[in-house]
Amino acid sequence: MNENHPSDGTVDVDAAVVDTADDIAEMRIRGAATIADAAAEALAIQAERSDADSPAAFQRQLRTAAKTLYETRPTAVSLPNALRYVLRGMEGETVADLRETTTARAEEFRTDLEQAQVTLGEIGANRLRDGDVVMTHCHSTDALSCIEAALEDGKEIEAIVKETRPRKQGHITARQLREWGVPVTLVVDNAARRYLDEADHVLVGADSIAADGSVINKIGTSGLAVNARERGVPVMVAAQTIKLHPDTMTGQTVEIEMRAEEEVLPPEERADIVADAPNDDGLSVENPAFDVTPPRHVDAIVTERGQFPPESIVTLMRELFGETTGEPWEV
Amino acid sequence: MNENHPSDGTVDVDAAVVDTADDIAEMRIRGAATIADAAAEALAIQAERSDADSPAAFQRQLRTAAKTLYETRPTAVSLPNALRYVLRGMEGETVADLRETTTARAEEFRTDLEQAQVTLGEIGANRLRDGDVVMTHCHSTDALSCIEAALEDGKEIEAIVKETRPRKQGHITARQLREWGVPVTLVVDNAARRYLDEADHVLVGADSIAADGSVINKIGTSGLAVNARERGVPVMVAAQTIKLHPDTMTGQTVEIEMRAEEEVLPPEERADIVADAPNDDGLSVENPAFDVTPPRHVDAIVTERGQFPPESIVTLMRELFGETTGEPWEV
Amino acid sequence: MNENHPSDGTVDVDAAVVDTADDIAEMRIRGAATIADAAAEALAIQAERSDADSPAAFQRQLRTAAKTLYETRPTAVSLPNALRYVLRGMEGETVADLRETTTARAEEFRTDLEQAQVTLGEIGANRLRDGDVVMTHCHSTDALSCIEAALEDGKEIEAIVKETRPRKQGHITARQLREWGVPVTLVVDNAARRYLDEADHVLVGADSIAADGSVINKIGTSGLAVNARERGVPVMVAAQTIKLHPDTMTGQTVEIEMRAEEEVLPPEERADIVADAPNDDGLSVENPAFDVTPPRHVDAIVTERGQFPPESIVTLMRELFGETTGEPWEV
Amino acid sequence: MNENHPSDGTVDVDAAVVDTADDIAEMRIRGAATIADAAAEALAIQAERSDADSPAAFQRQLRTAAKTLYETRPTAVSLPNALRYVLRGMEGETVADLRETTTARAEEFRTDLEQAQVTLGEIGANRLRDGDVVMTHCHSTDALSCIEAALEDGKEIEAIVKETRPRKQGHITARQLREWGVPVTLVVDNAARRYLDEADHVLVGADSIAADGSVINKIGTSGLAVNARERGVPVMVAAQTIKLHPDTMTGQTVEIEMRAEEEVLPPEERADIVADAPNDDGLSVENPAFDVTPPRHVDAIVTERGQFPPESIVTLMRELFGETTGEPWEV
Amino acid sequence: MNENHPSDGTVDVDAAVVDTADDIAEMRIRGAATIADAAAEALAIQAERSDADSPAAFQRQLRTAAKTLYETRPTAVSLPNALRYVLRGMEGETVADLRETTTARAEEFRTDLEQAQVTLGEIGANRLRDGDVVMTHCHSTDALSCIEAALEDGKEIEAIVKETRPRKQGHITARQLREWGVPVTLVVDNAARRYLDEADHVLVGADSIAADGSVINKIGTSGLAVNARERGVPVMVAAQTIKLHPDTMTGQTVEIEMRAEEEVLPPEERADIVADAPNDDGLSVENPAFDVTPPRHVDAIVTERGQFPPESIVTLMRELFGETTGEPWEV
Amino acid sequence: MNENHPSDGTVDVDAAVVDTADDIAEMRIRGAATIADAAAEALAIQAERSDADSPAAFQRQLRTAAKTLYETRPTAVSLPNALRYVLRGMEGETVADLRETTTARAEEFRTDLEQAQVTLGEIGANRLRDGDVVMTHCHSTDALSCIEAALEDGKEIEAIVKETRPRKQGHITARQLREWGVPVTLVVDNAARRYLDEADHVLVGADSIAADGSVINKIGTSGLAVNARERGVPVMVAAQTIKLHPDTMTGQTVEIEMRAEEEVLPPEERADIVADAPNDDGLSVENPAFDVTPPRHVDAIVTERGQFPPESIVTLMRELFGETTGEPWEV
Repeated sequence: MNENHPSDGTVDVDAAVVDTADDIAEMRIRGAATIADAAAEALAIQAERSDADSPAAFQRQLRTAAKTLYETRPTAVSLPNALRYVLRGMEGETVADLRETTTARAEEFRTDLEQAQVTLGEIGANRLRDGDVVMTHCHSTDALSCIEAALEDGKEIEAIVKETRPRKQGHITARQLREWGVPVTLVVDNAARRYLDEADHVLVGADSIAADGSVINKIGTSGLAVNARERGVPVMVAAQTIKLHPDTMTGQTVEIEMRAEEEVLPPEERADIVADAPNDDGLSVENPAFDVTPPRHVDAIVTERGQFPPESIVTLMRELFGETTGEPWEV
Repeated sequence: MNENHPSDGTVDVDAAVVDTADDIAEMRIRGAATIADAAAEALAIQAERSDADSPAAFQRQLRTAAKTLYETRPTAVSLPNALRYVLRGMEGETVADLRETTTARAEEFRTDLEQAQVTLGEIGANRLRDGDVVMTHCHSTDALSCIEAALEDGKEIEAIVKETRPRKQGHITARQLREWGVPVTLVVDNAARRYLDEADHVLVGADSIAADGSVINKIGTSGLAVNARERGVPVMVAAQTIKLHPDTMTGQTVEIEMRAEEEVLPPEERADIVADAPNDDGLSVENPAFDVTPPRHVDAIVTERGQFPPESIVTLMRELFGETTGEPWEV
Repeated sequence: MNENHPSDGTVDVDAAVVDTADDIAEMRIRGAATIADAAAEALAIQAERSDADSPAAFQRQLRTAAKTLYETRPTAVSLPNALRYVLRGMEGETVADLRETTTARAEEFRTDLEQAQVTLGEIGANRLRDGDVVMTHCHSTDALSCIEAALEDGKEIEAIVKETRPRKQGHITARQLREWGVPVTLVVDNAARRYLDEADHVLVGADSIAADGSVINKIGTSGLAVNARERGVPVMVAAQTIKLHPDTMTGQTVEIEMRAEEEVLPPEERADIVADAPNDDGLSVENPAFDVTPPRHVDAIVTERGQFPPESIVTLMRELFGETTGEPWEV
Repeated sequence: MNENHPSDGTVDVDAAVVDTADDIAEMRIRGAATIADAAAEALAIQAERSDADSPAAFQRQLRTAAKTLYETRPTAVSLPNALRYVLRGMEGETVADLRETTTARAEEFRTDLEQAQVTLGEIGANRLRDGDVVMTHCHSTDALSCIEAALEDGKEIEAIVKETRPRKQGHITARQLREWGVPVTLVVDNAARRYLDEADHVLVGADSIAADGSVINKIGTSGLAVNARERGVPVMVAAQTIKLHPDTMTGQTVEIEMRAEEEVLPPEERADIVADAPNDDGLSVENPAFDVTPPRHVDAIVTERGQFPPESIVTLMRELFGETTGEPWEV
Repeated sequence: MNENHPSDGTVDVDAAVVDTADDIAEMRIRGAATIADAAAEALAIQAERSDADSPAAFQRQLRTAAKTLYETRPTAVSLPNALRYVLRGMEGETVADLRETTTARAEEFRTDLEQAQVTLGEIGANRLRDGDVVMTHCHSTDALSCIEAALEDGKEIEAIVKETRPRKQGHITARQLREWGVPVTLVVDNAARRYLDEADHVLVGADSIAADGSVINKIGTSGLAVNARERGVPVMVAAQTIKLHPDTMTGQTVEIEMRAEEEVLPPEERADIVADAPNDDGLSVENPAFDVTPPRHVDAIVTERGQFPPESIVTLMRELFGETTGEPWEV
Repeated sequence: MNENHPSDGTVDVDAAVVDTADDIAEMRIRGAATIADAAAEALAIQAERSDADSPAAFQRQLRTAAKTLYETRPTAVSLPNALRYVLRGMEGETVADLRETTTARAEEFRTDLEQAQVTLGEIGANRLRDGDVVMTHCHSTDALSCIEAALEDGKEIEAIVKETRPRKQGHITARQLREWGVPVTLVVDNAARRYLDEADHVLVGADSIAADGSVINKIGTSGLAVNARERGVPVMVAAQTIKLHPDTMTGQTVEIEMRAEEEVLPPEERADIVADAPNDDGLSVENPAFDVTPPRHVDAIVTERGQFPPESIVTLMRELFGETTGEPWEV
């Protein structure tokens, strides 16, 4: 028991839950899949070790554990997804039944998660034909798993890689693709429309996906998607279901992180720009991490549960995570 | 007389023409306006100093001079424009008449040219309202002259400046705007669609403009224009008439310069990307300097002769430079 | 027992059902929510008071009651929805079971209904950001509840209110918004495109929503939506689930009410127009109450069950009301 | 001579010019065609009566007269057009020649003007086929002349007339059409998209037309045009060339008149709206007279000089009125 | 038992299953509905006649039977659909239970199938109004059943029939429609856009429908749909649920059959074309049977389960056939 | 002199003119270029042989000759173009001058015409790059001349040839291309959208071109152009200036020829379709020869005078043929 996490009055949560919560809070556990896995495991441990003497007490404990975990990083979309998924499987009339269903559900979640990227890759690969040219934006292991699976199917794939300013994650993508022997053409982001003429697909990942079918992904995705539609190139988003954002089912807008100015404009370059300015205030730098692509510019969202038009992804959200008018621990 | 430029058999051109030709060839004279001005001046000198003993001989000399100048940099769009404009004014039955009309025409061209950017700026400024926010791409003195004139009219203007990879000419634009006290928001190219929501105009220059209404400008312009249309933001191109590309009247495609890979990918970054690759060949970098924006994504082209929908710019070309089925020196 | 409503041969329905049916038919009970509530209550009373001596008889009675209610106003979309929803919950092997499940289902429906507009408002409010400007068309309490919830969240909201000829329900909207202190700009319907430039959202209600994702709403909605898409302004439809039109799942077209000519053209104005006409027949006035907005022009439908892309609303219909190949009382 | 109009120092203008200027200023002369006609006549009188003793003096007088006339109503687009057209014809080496060319040019302008609407009507009528249905917005005699000519050609035409709030000029259109026996269906502006399904043409007039091909016309035109494009109905604008706005060739934005609030919202209706408001300031009414339709939503502009795609209208402007970098009296 | 189909090692399948499999393989059983019906019947027979001595053995037999049937024509979309649907209903703890649920499920499938086209027709007919004009492409009994039902409802329907090269199945459609007394206008495929002006609906069938909402149908459908959207004519696809392609849920691309060159170009016409050619190789004929229409160009898919926007059809697939990551016999 | 052609009262036209008129009327002279050439020649002969004793008489003769020629086939667009072009060059104060200018103008017209297709081909070829794939519709020697010139420039070109029902002129195109060694892929018209993915250009000719920028060409062109825009493939129209339709400057609609039913449906196929019909009237065949492509779906019109956006073609018409409010012989 951890006195720093009294959460819900008199209900105690297992120390393992507290440890996991601390690890998530301190970023020792990070990455959408890793966080989700740890949270499901923590709930399973809580269920196994529970000393609850009534079904109600058991449920109270589990919900408190979920709340403790959730509050560490409420903006990490995979965390509430893991909690909701597991808690929705908590069923039974006795503590034993509750324990069994909950741990089984957590196990199912973790097994699915472990397999998700591979399955997603196989599904996405089915959309790629031998000889296709894929344009990528940023770096996404979900997106890359589609190409990897296509290569394993013996298809030849080429890639046009946008460098993806400001952080140039396109270089990471290029390196991975070159490691696999995929021919890569690297272009600046400004050259995307020019090279869409030579692309058969735009393939990107997602930071999260909203209930209205919008895709939140690395800044620049939405502009690329608009141009892809104008050039007749289909846009494919690869995203595991832990990226589906249940809060958006209740209209929540996904908050877009604004990153440091220095990523875009190092101090010496700023100094140069304002050298002759009458004052220093008039130059600001805006550096949003993500943007929002509306569903009408996306052709398919590929998940480990299959591919979906963006407009129907809300149905999958409801199936996996339930209606979400309450808090994640109240499902 | 320069024996190295015998060009047309027995016809000599004045040494001043040869010098100017050398200066253009050696890039001592550069920049669209400067080249055009020098070429017109050289023709005027040729006309003044001509020792031709017949109208035909005079015309032959002038055409030879034009050919000599033209062949130094046939891809510089302003050069044939200057030559065509001046030669089209060469009229008369006597050498004296020809001399007078030619020098007058050259003078007119040079005077217009000197005034062109200011006039263009005033015309463009009329499109900007007090309080407007302008999004810029790359660096264009024609585009900036519109903002300058708007400021001189007492209008408050704000700017969202795209950095314009790979060469970040957006920084030059930002510096100029800050010098004038214009509030500047600098964004990476990927953020353009996000910030179009806050822009009242997209304002860009042009490398050249084709007879079918296409705008050839810094790579990234066409993608920006597509997004601007999708977001309902009008696109304004500022370009002096020396940028109109008469060759395109006869269907010529404007050749797009491919620039050095290193601008996009320094050697050390390349080394990093290919570190684990099975071979070194599979990574190429494409770095086109310009792209082509079709007329349907442009709202107005602002020149020193007025503003035009892109679809009617061909009429202005014909008016200024004639039908161009022949070579520039044959008009 | 009411001899005037023999409906189904020998089956009697409770007098309370007949009274409610009369009240609906006579428009004493009106408004989508009020009708739905009354119908669910009537079924609950029928279930409670039933003297059926077999489960089959009980079900017959309930279906007859539903049919009696339905036939009062078959075009009121909320009425069959209430009936279907309640009847789908009628389950069990004994009369007692059937009674209990039916009354519980009716209770659930009525409770949800009571809460629906508030919940919908909270969900819709989540789409509105502080400082947003909302353009409205006609008068919709569902739409207004989104603004009310946003205000309660402390957000500042401004409104551009279309007057909504012919009946100028925009004035009712304006009055409510002013009562809440919301700054209102009133414009004629013709000015909508001009003021979309200053709007962040179009927010409307719905008369009903079809299975193909079309939104049936006050005449003028579809034209506004087309312009909103062209100007890049998202369109948000606020509609409780009782507005979902199950008959449209089987392809039924929603019939559009044609209203009186005088709403558009008072007799004295008509007289003026036809004063010099050769005959009186050639002037007709068309005054449809509603129009149909296709789903591709709508961004989100906000219900009390969450927000949905219009293309996925059919799934929610099926979940709530079942497949609807039969009559509402036959589910 | 009128001492109240010394305008240009020592140059006198004829009393008839002054009278005409007064009549225009006082709105005794109004309407685009009437103003243009009066201005051309005034210049002709000035030319006839001129006592100038040198060509330069004659030209000074004429320009001063033009300036005097222009300054009465600088926003009336037909006025500078008339002045420019006449002054561009003032040619010759002697006073006699100048007088003759100027009066001839004025006569030509006035004759053309008198015939313009009829000619325009005949041209526009050629676009209408027997049995066509035309949707109108506002009231335009240019637009009506197309229908009139079609009727005279023996074609049967039907009309769907938008009432055109706030001033309901659609009633005037309907009355005229009924007088001619044309079957009329009157609809509120909100019903336009619904009835576009039954229309073969949208036919409107113009307040003025800009060099970038934009059509400035009664508020509501632009929204109608967007819907017409979406529904596949061609949009035809009928406008005499005196409506072409030469100032826009130099980028000038056409200023949109804001009309009185009371046209939209009579005081008693306003009182009703704000009855329960916390304060009276929060309700504003915006009542712009016109809006701007971009050329991409217009199919043809019909003038008395022929029909033109909107993108090429600038060429006609230049042909008729010259380049317009200077003031109207300086051409 | 048939020794030629040992399939799964030691498991035997009933001779009737083998016969059906042979009939399908030899094309004695053909047509989407007929194949599906035969496959379901074969599974029912297998279930009835099973001599399995354990639930596991029963299930093994059924799955082997399904596999045997499936492998006859893996590209016939209705075949795996029938198998999946039936096997998903195989439930119970005893052989008797399994037998009963399986045969009941097969019966349900066959009954639904028998009724499907009629039901679909009634649903589709609801979208057609009295007096509507329908444009058809190719020949589809599902599409025709909508018209038939509309005629039975007493509606007058007219048809514009595209001839549908290369095989001119439009003639079959025309003949059927004429038999019903429907006025038919026959046009070549090239005339479609011209006659869309006179159509109220485009109505086509489908070869299959993909999870991303794409419609695979006779070559020419996608081009027609693009033009229909541009002309504002809604596109309606009539397709029984056996046409939904579950494999596409896992991203599989539907393979498009390439048909014989001679259908397009008889040998004598080919000889004529290549008569003067330098060689014979340079002329190829491409004759794909189908093309792919993206969901954004389709308004509704009408099935016997109701009408759906194409973007939500994946939800219906999941409901009917489950998630399909495994083989059809493994559900 | 021919007494059968008294045309204008007392004015005689030369027998050669009458013969040419007869030849055109009787279709002995046919084809746009051949007709235009013959008409210009006839005017030149008339001018040479004229016995007019005054300038006015000469002009009367020429106009009468033009009228005689024009009335043979008023719908042949090249005929009035030839007449207008020549008559506009008839200038001078004496019969001798008139004769000289007229014959010179006719000569110029005929020389230009002879060269036009070659020049047009060179201009069009400039738009084609080495390795491009061109999709063609119907058969057009203007379009083919662009490919021929590109081949002569050493470029490799491939073609996708639509067969172009009903008359399959695509076969003629294919034969010509194969004769030149161009690789040809022949497809049915229905396959166009599928193969646009592999095309770099759509290249078609024109029957005529209207002042509003519309292209009248073989039925099927407009549908192809809509799909080309949707797929991002530019559309290029090759048309000599004799195809520009001056009458359309005055709004005239180009009348579309309806061709014989048998081209589409041979009698035996018709018999088959109506075999079981209740009556024979209900089957009609519509077989329009041409359709109308609006300018927004065309990227460039290539003429022998250069390439033009379709929206600016009206300016070229005015330049070549003048304003055309009068009859062709009255210019």
